[in-house]
Amino acid sequence: MSEKLQQLKERLGEVSDLRRAVSILSWDQQVNMPVQGNEARGQQMATLSKIAQEKFIADEVGKLLDDLKQEYEGADPESDEAAMIRVAARNYDKARRVPPEFIQEQEIVSSKAFEAWVEARSKSDFSIFRPHLEKVVELVQKYISFFPAGNHPYDTLLDDYEPGMKTEEVKAIFDSLRPKQVKLLKAIAASKQVRSDFLFKKYNEKKLIDFGVDVVTKFGYDWNRGRQDKAPHPFETTFSINDVRITTRFEADNPLATLFSTMHEAGHAMYEQGVNPAYERTPLSSGTSLAVHESQSRMWENLVGRSLPFWEYFYPTFKSIFPAQLDGVSLKTFYKAINRVQPSFIRVNADEATYNMHIMLRLELEIGLVEGTIAVKDLPGIWNAKMEEYLGITPPNDARGVLQDIHWSGGAIGYFSTYALGNLVSAQLWEKIRRDIRNLDDQICKGDFTVLLGWLRKNIHQYGHKYEPQSLMQKVTGSKITPEPYVRYLTKKYSDIYGL
Amino acid sequence: MSEKLQQLKERLGEVSDLRRAVSILSWDQQVNMPVQGNEARGQQMATLSKIAQEKFIADEVGKLLDDLKQEYEGADPESDEAAMIRVAARNYDKARRVPPEFIQEQEIVSSKAFEAWVEARSKSDFSIFRPHLEKVVELVQKYISFFPAGNHPYDTLLDDYEPGMKTEEVKAIFDSLRPKQVKLLKAIAASKQVRSDFLFKKYNEKKLIDFGVDVVTKFGYDWNRGRQDKAPHPFETTFSINDVRITTRFEADNPLATLFSTMHEAGHAMYEQGVNPAYERTPLSSGTSLAVHESQSRMWENLVGRSLPFWEYFYPTFKSIFPAQLDGVSLKTFYKAINRVQPSFIRVNADEATYNMHIMLRLELEIGLVEGTIAVKDLPGIWNAKMEEYLGITPPNDARGVLQDIHWSGGAIGYFSTYALGNLVSAQLWEKIRRDIRNLDDQICKGDFTVLLGWLRKNIHQYGHKYEPQSLMQKVTGSKITPEPYVRYLTKKYSDIYGL
Repeated sequence: MSEKLQQLKERLGEVSDLRRAVSILSWDQQVNMPVQGNEARGQQMATLSKIAQEKFIADEVGKLLDDLKQEYEGADPESDEAAMIRVAARNYDKARRVPPEFIQEQEIVSSKAFEAWVEARSKSDFSIFRPHLEKVVELVQKYISFFPAGNHPYDTLLDDYEPGMKTEEVKAIFDSLRPKQVKLLKAIAASKQVRSDFLFKKYNEKKLIDFGVDVVTKFGYDWNRGRQDKAPHPFETTFSINDVRITTRFEADNPLATLFSTMHEAGHAMYEQGVNPAYERTPLSSGTSLAVHESQSRMWENLVGRSLPFWEYFYPTFKSIFPAQLDGVSLKTFYKAINRVQPSFIRVNADEATYNMHIMLRLELEIGLVEGTIAVKDLPGIWNAKMEEYLGITPPNDARGVLQDIHWSGGAIGYFSTYALGNLVSAQLWEKIRRDIRNLDDQICKGDFTVLLGWLRKNIHQYGHKYEPQSLMQKVTGSKITPEPYVRYLTKKYSDIYGL
Repeated sequence: MSEKLQQLKERLGEVSDLRRAVSILSWDQQVNMPVQGNEARGQQMATLSKIAQEKFIADEVGKLLDDLKQEYEGADPESDEAAMIRVAARNYDKARRVPPEFIQEQEIVSSKAFEAWVEARSKSDFSIFRPHLEKVVELVQKYISFFPAGNHPYDTLLDDYEPGMKTEEVKAIFDSLRPKQVKLLKAIAASKQVRSDFLFKKYNEKKLIDFGVDVVTKFGYDWNRGRQDKAPHPFETTFSINDVRITTRFEADNPLATLFSTMHEAGHAMYEQGVNPAYERTPLSSGTSLAVHESQSRMWENLVGRSLPFWEYFYPTFKSIFPAQLDGVSLKTFYKAINRVQPSFIRVNADEATYNMHIMLRLELEIGLVEGTIAVKDLPGIWNAKMEEYLGITPPNDARGVLQDIHWSGGAIGYFSTYALGNLVSAQLWEKIRRDIRNLDDQICKGDFTVLLGWLRKNIHQYGHKYEPQSLMQKVTGSKITPEPYVRYLTKKYSDIYGL
């Protein structure tokens, strides 16, 4: 390896160590920290983040990158070295454009906006959040101004979460998806509904969590390189390729959410556990984008975990653990219940058939805010109108409407669409997987996920951040992200369940 | 506050944030981390430590300190500002003397020495450890050479753990202590022995740990600013004044050790929880020295936790939890058992009457190694001879002799004496406390520790690192560290127990 590349790797390794230390501090904050430790912890995380940023955007890193770009000009662009230099240079260029004072201002504004959002949501009063969100949007527009004008100002935001993805691409995908998904929802609404009352009985927390652990162990989540703890919100976090942790929680009024969220987070975690170990401490470690990450979590949660073959294997055990709750409930009835479709107000609780509608609504509002065609003050009204248009329901108040999500308070505009894209990617990969693994259902029926995980490791996980999401999809499935496989998946699944 | 002091505090705050982040990473490593996370974690901790050191020893810190020393020349030396500048300057001067390459070399040597020590101890073969220890001693001598020649080369080492303490002082203290403690031990050996068989029956781990939690809650350990977890070794660690954690372990063959070690670690933790919150992120936060720290842990473990008044309050409850184990065991019999004196090979299991003898032995060997009057190859023989001389027993092998402690493998020469000094300090403070709180025993008999903890908070804890240990002792007790109170304490206690 060239001496300069070695120097770059050393520096980026330090930046990685600092950032992952922040992740450890954050995990501890959410999982273990005594209540009063909050202020000092915030300070410690801020200091480490600041030093990581300083070390990354230093002039000498830019110099090294310039030299290395020259040095590797003729090198195989598919090589790890070329990819590392490319990704590092891209991140460096973006980071250098944003002045440190702006980051500080954004942190202060976000922190106040977060507090205001918590209060506004608890009182269901948008007016409390409104001035803060206006400031947030203003800063987001300022952030966009640091970057060269692209085709669409929203491109800049999208690119932070989904490298290389363009607003026009996302719009085209969603424009194609929307009418098909609305049509499906109408057909479902017009047919005989399925029962799911038994899912909301009292379930023992520990038994549910233990069952979830058994499931993700079967999936192939490696406990020698991870662990699960309880936290207020379920999440996955990576400290190294050999230490990838997940959290779960128990909600008494929606007990099975514990189980599906464990599968979801394990899906994220197995992606991280599968990255090429040679990428440790480089910008190539970790998954390539939020959408591809979400495709992994959604695949294990929904395409596997809410499938009939999965429950053919697991239902007898599950029923033996909860005989009273599931008395008289057949496998098919259970399977229909966990896939029940019902338009609802809250995104995070939405079923597979309605989820993307929540995202499309948000995307349209975000683009409007960034373009300046939608004013913050008009958000609640537009939100409610779109909910009525897409899902046929109107939120009873703003807490269950425009105020439900944390994202905007932190300035994370551009994030939402990755959730929907993740669903599409999961189905697109799934079609390819089914072609490659002909007897996949048989394997799943036997509780055997090794071939499936092996496929994901080989085709997705190992590459980490090496390929941009659209290139990876092209390489693996022969096409960029496209909505058709997801529509086919939903149509087939719900035709069966609802007898369409 | 002067602008320069503000700048210094900002920089030292960053250093503190980095170091405490290392503590969090280390705690997680010992408490939670999946087995395979070790390599990445070591790298992360090394990076953070290195950056903390670089930021601390930077030229601009020296410049700020020089300017501030001038600026505060006429200021009240008792002021927090003057103390902070003094402590920072002292640490800075020490840190600047040690070249970064030396620290790296020491880390490499220590890491190998640690591995060799683990193997040597498991095989009870000193020859495996010997060449590594020789290298360690060589480096320790080199380390000493970076500092101005003092009265004794060992002073430099001692000063790292016990600021301001001189070898001659420690020797004088131990020379005075040794004959008195030997005499006491002989008298005990010649008298009727006490039974303790019931302490080694089978005790339920969870019940013991829960009882320990109740005890330290009564002591005043603040769970809103701390927590206890299981770890391979018990320790206390500080992430901020508002997040001070302890760990415990359970040893089936010595079950009550869990209980006493919880009291011990809580003693350390209450010290840290009691430091003036204004010292957060400055060099004045945390306890002033290892000996004063150990005085707090030993006080709660031994002077409180192994006292008769303590068990007058707790024994009825304890016996109700373990009725079978303690059937027919009276309070007095129990009290005698937990204070049973018996010369033994392993320091960490030693009773109060023999513990210091283990330390004196180590101190003499360390001084000999540093002076060059003892060669590493002769350590096992000298060790065994001194064990025979001080405690009348000869280790059956080196694993239970010269190889038992981890300290030397890490280059921590100069550390041991702080354990014994901690015992002396605890008794010296205790005499003063008994004069100030006349009805202390009555309070302890009622399970009320608020006045005791209040005294420690006011006289010791709040000052953190503001006063050097000997100044603090002078200020609080009217005398520097002296062995007499400890001898009086031991003599009185064991005269009662053994009817001397």
